[in-house]
Amino acid sequence: MPVNRASGTRDLLPETMIRRLSVIETVRGVFARFGFLPLETPAIERIETLMGKYGAEGDQLIYKILKRGEGGVRGEVDLALRYDLTVPLARVVAMNPGLSMPFKRYQIQPVWRADRPQKGRFREFYQCDVDTVGCEEMWADAEALAVVDSALRALGFAGFTIKLNHRALLRALVEEVGAGDRETGVLVAIDKLDKIGKKGVTAELERCGLDSAAIERLWSLIDLGGAEGLELLREQLPAASQALAQLDEVLEYTAAMGVPSGTVRFDPTLARGLSYYTGPVFEVVVEKPAIGSIAGGGRYDNLIGIFGKKSVPAVGVSLGLERILVVMEELGMFGELPTATTQVLVTVFDDDSRVLALEQAAALRQAGINAEVWMKAPGKLAKQFKYANKAGIARVLTCGPKEREEGQVTLKHMESGEQWTGPLDQAIARIQG
Amino acid sequence: MPVNRASGTRDLLPETMIRRLSVIETVRGVFARFGFLPLETPAIERIETLMGKYGAEGDQLIYKILKRGEGGVRGEVDLALRYDLTVPLARVVAMNPGLSMPFKRYQIQPVWRADRPQKGRFREFYQCDVDTVGCEEMWADAEALAVVDSALRALGFAGFTIKLNHRALLRALVEEVGAGDRETGVLVAIDKLDKIGKKGVTAELERCGLDSAAIERLWSLIDLGGAEGLELLREQLPAASQALAQLDEVLEYTAAMGVPSGTVRFDPTLARGLSYYTGPVFEVVVEKPAIGSIAGGGRYDNLIGIFGKKSVPAVGVSLGLERILVVMEELGMFGELPTATTQVLVTVFDDDSRVLALEQAAALRQAGINAEVWMKAPGKLAKQFKYANKAGIARVLTCGPKEREEGQVTLKHMESGEQWTGPLDQAIARIQG
Repeated sequence: MPVNRASGTRDLLPETMIRRLSVIETVRGVFARFGFLPLETPAIERIETLMGKYGAEGDQLIYKILKRGEGGVRGEVDLALRYDLTVPLARVVAMNPGLSMPFKRYQIQPVWRADRPQKGRFREFYQCDVDTVGCEEMWADAEALAVVDSALRALGFAGFTIKLNHRALLRALVEEVGAGDRETGVLVAIDKLDKIGKKGVTAELERCGLDSAAIERLWSLIDLGGAEGLELLREQLPAASQALAQLDEVLEYTAAMGVPSGTVRFDPTLARGLSYYTGPVFEVVVEKPAIGSIAGGGRYDNLIGIFGKKSVPAVGVSLGLERILVVMEELGMFGELPTATTQVLVTVFDDDSRVLALEQAAALRQAGINAEVWMKAPGKLAKQFKYANKAGIARVLTCGPKEREEGQVTLKHMESGEQWTGPLDQAIARIQG
Repeated sequence: MPVNRASGTRDLLPETMIRRLSVIETVRGVFARFGFLPLETPAIERIETLMGKYGAEGDQLIYKILKRGEGGVRGEVDLALRYDLTVPLARVVAMNPGLSMPFKRYQIQPVWRADRPQKGRFREFYQCDVDTVGCEEMWADAEALAVVDSALRALGFAGFTIKLNHRALLRALVEEVGAGDRETGVLVAIDKLDKIGKKGVTAELERCGLDSAAIERLWSLIDLGGAEGLELLREQLPAASQALAQLDEVLEYTAAMGVPSGTVRFDPTLARGLSYYTGPVFEVVVEKPAIGSIAGGGRYDNLIGIFGKKSVPAVGVSLGLERILVVMEELGMFGELPTATTQVLVTVFDDDSRVLALEQAAALRQAGINAEVWMKAPGKLAKQFKYANKAGIARVLTCGPKEREEGQVTLKHMESGEQWTGPLDQAIARIQG
């Protein structure tokens, strides 16, 4: 039988997995450092929970599952695969009115999108989300920025910027140029600035029906970012004063939380696609490689209300694990991170040494050392050393007839070539030390 | 909009998740201790990879997914959700001929079965599998037993038995009583001994067409377990001599690997349902509560050959995470394991103290301490202490006007009630110490 994987998916083999697990562990640790608690939701949601939450294109990309027991080509569809981690969170909050608020949770799980497979894009990929539900104050927004800053620094990232904007500010801008009835079109155009440049955006704005005066006015308001941009808008756009005050708060709190100055930058052109955002929005971009954003989020005070009886404010951020891994790989950030978890290979000298080798490995494990025993038929030791080398195992333990007689073992460090002979308990101490 | 979860699934809220993560971390650590490496496969497999591998009932329980972009009631089905971790492993081995053998991998991931929901049974549940592919020697089988023994002991289990049997021995038994053409029926009957007793099994064997002499002969051969049972069969069933010699090897190697004597027990009535086993089979049962097996596995030398060009021997064991968690819960094995990961709540005295509190929390986090800041409006401290208590946060840090003026903080240990006042850096040292 010929064998294939489902299109657009991939297997994560050990070398890849060891790095992923290390990154996930670091991220999880930072999330907990800020007091966020773990949540997991089922991969399978009722189809009506997901449909209509991600726009028309999103509905198309949701994986749909047949009703239990039905097969063939005429089954009924009642379930679907998780598409993101935000909608399931909103469902959980609505279903658990007893949750104490604010509910600070993180969630690290795969999501599925029936997208066309392409380089670096997969139909199953992990998201790492942190959200604070039930707090409308800007310190929750600032904390979302601070936790993403800490997570990225803990992973070794340095050259990144957190772009910050506010949905209400964008709305005020659109109204200022008389396009309040074409908000989505104008924002979609502005959002493309990085991709199609100022000229391209101008053409799109013309297609939205903005005249040249309006377009000029718009550029004059969003041309500047950073502190100067905030100052300009404070003077020129009184309708955005509340949004600007909230951004000031976010900046003050992120500084108090230890986010290095210059990391967060106001960017009036940042729109973010998802329509459910209501307040501050943000996105993390790296200087290189050119890969788009590696994290993003914002405040969405109206989403949970769709599911529940009452409206509940919420703000969160999602780290794109797959992109983060691509960047770390391309920038050589894994450095000395080992690609193996096994620390010692215990060799087997001959058939009569098998039980002794198993006992030696058991003693190593008892001491907390990751050890494996040569699994194939004994034979030449050179072959066993070669295997250790290929597998990235740092040390090899051997015990030939002479050592066995004297109650000793030989420990070889593969990289340095250093050899040492002595009793097993001293070998264990050397490995631990 | 009313909100529901998909039937037979559940959300894992923080308190549950913290325990699960701790158990998974322990199991993962033991797997690595034995030199097993992590693997993950996609949740979505091609439907033809899964169909026909789990029997007719299994085919019914596989979740089937519609082809990309198709919806409604007439879509074509081409994908399916992972049903176990063994078939995906076999696919991975067949698709990656370059894998160096033996391939020792572990895999901790959910699987999905469209079973009828019932107490303690879920449609999405985790399996923790360890397999050695490419080694036909009995030390690989023994290692599967040793790793499951170590994992359970690391979790705090003591009263458990690993039942051991051999598929070839079962076949010899069935042939010995002249029922070689009814092997499945006879094995299914024997497998029910724990559930329906000797009388029930006898009735089923009669339904299989065994006469009373054959049934009596069968009972005389399988009545004894343990070392005596092995001895009896060695005398009475020469056709099983190779299988018995392999079981001797397994027992010798597990002892060398440090599995305590008495843990592994030969049980000639252990059949295990899955038809793909070819050699030793084993199952872990706990003395209490009555929950069936919490782990099981065996040798399956012919499964990978179905997918690939050549036959590859393999042996593995699967730990049932959900059942292990149920047993640990029922036996009170979580003991002192905290239900919170946050170590310190930093209180906010009044509106003017917000920034100071954020700075204090940042300093704690910088020192590796998990800290959260009171998120609601300041107000009474008693409310903030109550929250810490409810959330299981061990320590509360306060800083009133007097302490602020003197550059000090007060640290209260919630359980002992002990209070201490001093500079923040000393507070940090106390928490760390």
